[in-house]
Amino acid sequence: MSDEQAIRDLFTGWVEAIQTQNLDGVVANHDSDIVMFDVPPPYDGVRGMAEYRKSWQPFFEWIGQGAKFELVELDVVAGADVAFAYVLLRCGTPEGLNTNPDNRLRITVGLRKVDGYWVVAHEHHSFPMTDTAS
Amino acid sequence: MSDEQAIRDLFTGWVEAIQTQNLDGVVANHDSDIVMFDVPPPYDGVRGMAEYRKSWQPFFEWIGQGAKFELVELDVVAGADVAFAYVLLRCGTPEGLNTNPDNRLRITVGLRKVDGYWVVAHEHHSFPMTDTAS
Repeated sequence: MSDEQAIRDLFTGWVEAIQTQNLDGVVANHDSDIVMFDVPPPYDGVRGMAEYRKSWQPFFEWIGQGAKFELVELDVVAGADVAFAYVLLRCGTPEGLNTNPDNRLRITVGLRKVDGYWVVAHEHHSFPMTDTAS
Repeated sequence: MSDEQAIRDLFTGWVEAIQTQNLDGVVANHDSDIVMFDVPPPYDGVRGMAEYRKSWQPFFEWIGQGAKFELVELDVVAGADVAFAYVLLRCGTPEGLNTNPDNRLRITVGLRKVDGYWVVAHEHHSFPMTDTAS
């Protein structure tokens, strides 16, 4: 299997684990030193596996109430030992997606190859800001 | 020079080019097919060099009015031919930073090595959302 295909499979499996609120599946291919820039604060990111695991709880509750998390586009740039991927998802409540159907969750992922397996070392999640005054 | 140092230099030069509103400097090490997930829409990203160049105009106006764009933390993961970096910056108007001094602009960058030089193929910029209802 090519590195690109391995990363595509890793990512689609991760999306399925989120959709089914399977936390062990979500973290299965993640570095213990993961740094995630999440949609909400902390401002300097979620750091380390314990904090990363905790961060999914409110999102799983939201998914459990009917929010969508659907892959729209996945681009992978895989090198010999480091890779990144950037992703667009339809993510929101049915009401929110009805109001703003073009809105997208954007995710960028950074990976390293460790002992022949791809491992996620960094994630960056965000929605576009329609009010950029700050 | 190590790949990590080359990417650190590329990135600090890019920050300086933004601070001095030097558009040619900002795009000097960028792929013509750059895909940027910017702070504001478009929802599916800024695609290609012409759109990328255009996207800087309103930001340069904001910088010209006194907004800050200061590097706080830069982490680089460099492989043989692909790399990524994640970055925290103090970015905002003096008033905005006074109100919320911990707020950070988060940037993730994906790079490829082309003919011995590192080139930025992807950028993802965002602020944490303090209101995540959607």
